[in-house]
Amino acid sequence: MTKDDWQDTTIDERQAAAHPEIAGLVEEVGQLRASVDNIDGAILALLAERFKCTRQIGVLKAQAGFAPEDPQREQVQAVRFRAIALAAGLDPQLAEDYRRFAAEAAKRRHQDIAESIR
Amino acid sequence: MTKDDWQDTTIDERQAAAHPEIAGLVEEVGQLRASVDNIDGAILALLAERFKCTRQIGVLKAQAGFAPEDPQREQVQAVRFRAIALAAGLDPQLAEDYRRFAAEAAKRRHQDIAESIR
Repeated sequence: MTKDDWQDTTIDERQAAAHPEIAGLVEEVGQLRASVDNIDGAILALLAERFKCTRQIGVLKAQAGFAPEDPQREQVQAVRFRAIALAAGLDPQLAEDYRRFAAEAAKRRHQDIAESIR
Repeated sequence: MTKDDWQDTTIDERQAAAHPEIAGLVEEVGQLRASVDNIDGAILALLAERFKCTRQIGVLKAQAGFAPEDPQREQVQAVRFRAIALAAGLDPQLAEDYRRFAAEAAKRRHQDIAESIR
């Protein structure tokens, strides 16, 4: 493929208008991005529910005096996430990255809750 | 509240069996954790679909020669994620953390795809 002046640039409608030969490609990427946006909206709504649950867990644990972190639970989750990822066709490394993101966020908040109660 | 021997430990059924006074608490945390597990299962399924879309975007962009990253798109997403988070009762910082996690993962894969095509 020869190098053209729109290459190594950002994909957008302006490039499509200037270069009819890539209009179909830009259209296809636009449709895929619309799906990504819908999926992200659903994931953010689920994250809101997830952190409502973990906030409540943090309050209960802090009131009773349990430790904010729980390495055993994290290990069980890691194994489970890997199995779900493999079944769903998701790169297991991405599932592990998500698990860490969620666990770190919840733990930080549990510590904040525990400190606010002490 | 007086300090007891199960405090600062991990919350689990063994502690509940040994200490009837905290059995209700352990039960409640168990129910919340079951909800967290269900929500994580749904999120992982959605992440699998999300990365199918971004993989396809990566292939299309690499075939045409577009750059893997797209700062303008990322900025639009950041603003949108913040609005969704506020509407859903999610800490906007968590939405931003999720956005970065997803953007970094997709970008890394786009670069891999671009390199495998060159």
